[in-house]
Amino acid sequence: MKTVSTVRALRRHLEHCRQNNQTIGFVPTMGALHDGHARLLTRCRRENDVSVLSIFVNPTQFGPGEDYRSYPRDTARDRILAEQCGCDVLFYPSVETMYPPGAQTTVSVSQLSRGLCGSRRPGHFDGVATIVTKLLNIVQPYRLYLGQKDLQQTVVLRRMIQDLNLPVRCVIVPTVRESDGLAMSSRNAYLSPKQRREAAILHQALRTAKQHISDGERSCARIRSLIRRMITSTSGRIDYIECVSLSTLQPLKVFDGQCAIALAVYFGRARLIDNIILQI
Amino acid sequence: MKTVSTVRALRRHLEHCRQNNQTIGFVPTMGALHDGHARLLTRCRRENDVSVLSIFVNPTQFGPGEDYRSYPRDTARDRILAEQCGCDVLFYPSVETMYPPGAQTTVSVSQLSRGLCGSRRPGHFDGVATIVTKLLNIVQPYRLYLGQKDLQQTVVLRRMIQDLNLPVRCVIVPTVRESDGLAMSSRNAYLSPKQRREAAILHQALRTAKQHISDGERSCARIRSLIRRMITSTSGRIDYIECVSLSTLQPLKVFDGQCAIALAVYFGRARLIDNIILQI
Repeated sequence: MKTVSTVRALRRHLEHCRQNNQTIGFVPTMGALHDGHARLLTRCRRENDVSVLSIFVNPTQFGPGEDYRSYPRDTARDRILAEQCGCDVLFYPSVETMYPPGAQTTVSVSQLSRGLCGSRRPGHFDGVATIVTKLLNIVQPYRLYLGQKDLQQTVVLRRMIQDLNLPVRCVIVPTVRESDGLAMSSRNAYLSPKQRREAAILHQALRTAKQHISDGERSCARIRSLIRRMITSTSGRIDYIECVSLSTLQPLKVFDGQCAIALAVYFGRARLIDNIILQI
Repeated sequence: MKTVSTVRALRRHLEHCRQNNQTIGFVPTMGALHDGHARLLTRCRRENDVSVLSIFVNPTQFGPGEDYRSYPRDTARDRILAEQCGCDVLFYPSVETMYPPGAQTTVSVSQLSRGLCGSRRPGHFDGVATIVTKLLNIVQPYRLYLGQKDLQQTVVLRRMIQDLNLPVRCVIVPTVRESDGLAMSSRNAYLSPKQRREAAILHQALRTAKQHISDGERSCARIRSLIRRMITSTSGRIDYIECVSLSTLQPLKVFDGQCAIALAVYFGRARLIDNIILQI
């Protein structure tokens, strides 16, 4: 595995790959790698000649009071994991490399960034859209790999790629879960043992909801109540539970077509998100 | 000359060029081609294997009440001119091609878009930055050609290219002028014969200012007064006359280092811009 930290070094290396007609796959991450990232990388390896993984804790997607400073960072461990998963090139830039003095350009995806996490984390998706545009322009991959756990992020970035005519194919990979169903997340590291046990309720509630919908329930209000009741039986503090159209992310009253249930819940200081996609 | 109007057809053609290791140069325009555009294209031809020119009157860079509807359009004539100048590929997309339903992504360059034309034309540079990002992602040129006449546009786009890590070199080409000094512009077509004669004052005033500065004048206030006096001796209505730092576009009190005088003046309904760059 080659590790580079400058744009110039990465471009030089990848230019060489491109000239040899190798396809490049790209997995952007904020590090603190877990099995979810490993799954992205495995898929990326299978479908491309060269796999690039970036580790960059992007300051512009954290709001004031969020966990930018305390976000888990363990590059030595990440490096080993990335190599074990068959990563060919690890891009590990500094904040100054990605945002040199004078940087002032922002990419915004308006409507899709507004609801769900966007309404709780103002500016978050501008930060995500901007850094991913930059990384795509640097890596110029043939395929981009994103995890389904970050549902709104996948919808926002797909729209952005289409709107800006970015020449990349976007591959969404299903969420990887712990044995009790908890979605893998770097922020799970914040959980106490008790919170960790309780957090399994998120996926249990989504699965129960899905079962009710399979059994004919169509009321979003009733499904949200059901999920709320299950979560509030633990120490979880609900940030939101929303039933939305998958294409617009607009709230629904009745489940219909391609839709999703998305939620964000605090356990202690860990804000966890999860979702389930439904085809009615 | 090949003419294409869809992204797919353009990409297919250029992919073929790239595989033959041909360098691609790109001249984005809004049509109504004149000798300024011809100069861009000539330079582009000289420096690249394949020259792509786009014609697209971009609605998102016009504000309400501006001249989007009346902007001069003459595609038949443009096509002939482009071919005469040695254009290899003319990209002539529809509004629906560039902004399909649901498009909602915007690129913004914050500080540099604020002053000069940006403060008079809110949203203008967001529109410019967004369409140029899209066009660059579609064409993927090695070099981009921009005219110096649109000073703020060149500074904004250079910053954007740097900030978004767009893999393109930006070439700024000096303004082409009529024999009396008037900068070539598609909007000159709006001028009555009298306004056309009077509009030569813009370049005359900038040249006079430059001479005064060469002679030792350093006060921006006095230079602006001088220019204002010259222009108000005609029917021109001043939108702004600004003395700015070339790197930040911030107003100066005293000329120093790399700076510019930029102005926007109405003659009738034609809003004309011009500028001069100074190295003190």
